[in-house]
This record gives sequence, C-alpha cells and structure tokens, in this order.
Amino acid sequence: MNDSSEIKTGEVTAGVIIIGNEVLSGRTQDVNLAYMGKQLDALGIRIMESRVIPDIEQTIIDTVNHFRETYSYVFTTGGIGPTHDDITSASIAKTFKVDLEKNSEAIRALEKYYAPGGINEARMKMANIPEGAKLIDNPLSGAPGYQMENVFVMAGVPAIMRLMFDGITDRLVGGDPIITFNVATNIGEGVFADGLSKLQDEYSDISIGSYPYFKQRKLGVNLVMRSTDLDRLEDLKVKLIAMITDLGGKIHDA
Amino acid sequence: MNDSSEIKTGEVTAGVIIIGNEVLSGRTQDVNLAYMGKQLDALGIRIMESRVIPDIEQTIIDTVNHFRETYSYVFTTGGIGPTHDDITSASIAKTFKVDLEKNSEAIRALEKYYAPGGINEARMKMANIPEGAKLIDNPLSGAPGYQMENVFVMAGVPAIMRLMFDGITDRLVGGDPIITFNVATNIGEGVFADGLSKLQDEYSDISIGSYPYFKQRKLGVNLVMRSTDLDRLEDLKVKLIAMITDLGGKIHDA
Repeated sequence: MNDSSEIKTGEVTAGVIIIGNEVLSGRTQDVNLAYMGKQLDALGIRIMESRVIPDIEQTIIDTVNHFRETYSYVFTTGGIGPTHDDITSASIAKTFKVDLEKNSEAIRALEKYYAPGGINEARMKMANIPEGAKLIDNPLSGAPGYQMENVFVMAGVPAIMRLMFDGITDRLVGGDPIITFNVATNIGEGVFADGLSKLQDEYSDISIGSYPYFKQRKLGVNLVMRSTDLDRLEDLKVKLIAMITDLGGKIHDA
Repeated sequence: MNDSSEIKTGEVTAGVIIIGNEVLSGRTQDVNLAYMGKQLDALGIRIMESRVIPDIEQTIIDTVNHFRETYSYVFTTGGIGPTHDDITSASIAKTFKVDLEKNSEAIRALEKYYAPGGINEARMKMANIPEGAKLIDNPLSGAPGYQMENVFVMAGVPAIMRLMFDGITDRLVGGDPIITFNVATNIGEGVFADGLSKLQDEYSDISIGSYPYFKQRKLGVNLVMRSTDLDRLEDLKVKLIAMITDLGGKIHDA
C-alpha cells in the first residue's frame, strides 16, 4: 500500500461534492472535479475525496456536514439555479442552521445581469442565500455562488464553475504546491512493476502512480510522480527513466 | 425538493466507487460513472451515489462495506493491476474477511493473454483474487475482474471496464427500465421555472431536471424527464412543450 496517499499532519485537504441526479444517471459528464484537482494542486491543497450525490436534501446536509468537519475546504457544484430541482441553497442553510434570506448584494448582481423588469419570482430565488454567507462572483450569468465558513457553493455549469473557482483562489490558504512529473512508456506494467515498487520504497515521500492506457490501439503506461519536493522528484525521475530504459522500454512524450 | 429522487421501496439501486489518486488529482478524467449510469438505466437500476476515493486501504474497506449494505449493487473501478499502487484486491479481501488466493481460473486467463514465459511475479499478482470470488472476463488484456456477493470489482481503464461491465449485465436483476425524455429549449430557466414547478407537482412520480448549458456562446436548457412509465412521460412531454411554446420558447433537438 502506498503510504504517501495518507493525510499528513498539517496538510491542507479538500473534499468535492458534486450535487445532481444528472451526473449519477450519466446524462451529464462531470468535468468540474478534474478542473479543481489541477487548480488545487498548484495551491498545495489535496483533494482527498469526492462524492456525487442526488438532489436529496438530507443527503446534501449529511454529506456537507461530514466533509466540512473532515477536510480543510469543501467545494460543492450544482443545484443553485431557479428551478424546483435546485435545492442546494435551502439545504446549505439547514446544514449551518441559519435562515435563507434575500441577499441584497445578490439582488444587485441579478439586476446588473437581467434587463430591467426581467427578474421574476423564479429568478429572485437565486438571491436566496444562507444568512452570513460571503458571495462568490458569477461574471457569466449574474447569480452568485457563496462561501459559508470553509464551504464554497458553486454552480454546476462548467463555464460558470470555473469563473467562480478562479474568483475564490485568493481566499484559500494552501501548503507547498504539489508538483507532478509524468513519464510515459510503451512497456507493460508487469515488466517494470517490481523495479517501480523498489523505487517507491526508496522514495516513500513521493506518491508514484502507474496508469495504463489504450490510445490508437496501442498500450502505454503513464508513470506519475507527485510531491512538493522538486529536487527529490528530479532525482526519482532520472532513476525511473534509467530503470525503464534498462528494461528495454522507450520513453514517450507524456 | 424533488421527492422523486428518494429511494422507493423495492427499487433496485447501485453505488459506484471510483478508486484512484489520479482521478482526485485531476490527472485522469473519470468517464466510467457516466457509462455505467446510462447502462444501468436500461436495466432499471438507479445509481444513488458515487465516490471517488484515494488508494488508501482503510478508505476502500470502509467505503465498500458502507455501500454493499446500503445499495443493491456496488461497482468499483481501478486498482487491480500489477503495480505497487494497485491495492484494491487486497482491500476487498479484507472487506470480506477472506484470504487473497492464487485463482487458477485467473492464471489460465493470464496464460491465454501473455506469451509463454511472459507471466512474471508482478503479472502473477493479478491472479490474486479474494477467496470465493466469481471472475469477470477481461477480453482486452487478460487480467480478470471479479464479483464478491453484490460487489463487482473492475478495471479503471475505460476500454477494459466497459467490456467487463458488458459481461456482467446478465448477473444483474433490475427493475423496470428507466426511460429518459429530453426537451431542449432556448429560453432561460427563470422564464419557465414556475410553470415547470407546477408540472413537477402534477407529475410527482416523474423526476424532472432542468440543466442549463452554454454551447457556441449560446444559452440553452435541457429539460430531462425520467420515469419507468412511458405513458406518463409522453403526457408530460406534450404539456411541457406546450408550456415552453406558450412562453415564446423554441424547442431544439436534444
């Protein structure tokens, strides 16, 4: 087992909650987790878990409560629009035991986006924000996300989620950036597994992953090294490439 | 809130566990959940939850135990290869409190795939299967997945996972197929939210979702109706289209 996967003391962690029946049914392909994973690496924040959950109030409440007590930061996506199935904000208010209130800053954001008179009752629902929240700007379609303590509530539409996420990175305090090195090769995992395992033992502070793929009907493997220590990563990469080459493998561009 | 999201008595449910640091870090985009979501719909099995978890033994054990007690079926992907970070099979054996054993059927599958003498110690690791498991065929690269009670353990590489999944559908006993209707429109959610909410109240047995999207810089919304009752779905679709059209909306091809 790979001890470098465990949470270390002082490490800054995150949990991601994807809210929406459409992701569970396969109708919508989630791409928000992968986006956040990459961005949070650079900030030195490691996603430890992600859950895709349905639009069920009690499930949202229980999951957010568990995550906010377990991880440094929690990010949710989905369910903050104007329709009947958008129940995230009501659920978050219950999670924090506060009221949903008409947020005047959110109303101003909607007024800027919609034509005069365009904010009907349904759209006004998007200004219902849990009491005490700090808003997250939505430059694309007006209706804001928001932060409650260590929980960041964002839209599910990827284009909006990304802009919201990019707007909150200055609120996050991470650790050292996590650096990823990738070495791709044409030989099978079974050929180098033993050598790789020895390198993992020698570099137990670095997380090494081995990920086979099929591309254009050819088998290949990506060897991924992740750490905050650039010098150690560079050392390991040299040894890894030597090990693969000694076994007759070629190194591809990743 | 959308009561049609709750688990109903007698409903056949599933939970999906995606095992792998590479998905959490954003390096790998999971596509297995969406594939299974669509396939299970046709079998009348509804995915209620999915978790992406790291390669940590205790996390795998706890998650699988929780899921197998909660859902009719559990599907895992990832971590059954030959390298040091492939810890799924050892973890599943501990979950079921059985030994990992050299499975003779799995050895034969490996022998069929690899050239004579090509099965070294690392590759032989892929024949380590929890005692009592029923194998799942891997037509692409030999090393099998397996079933332990209601838990199906599959590869993470999508091309392999799909073939494994297609090979186990005759082991699954589902309910009535879940049918999905989609109506796409060019008007905003805020325009029809009130009318849609009334339709949801009238058709409380049907799950109605409203999913905005941006495509080629244009806003649109997909209205997705899901149920096992085709007649009710067809009724609702007619009323939904009438409602949208009355509001001046156009209906797009989905």
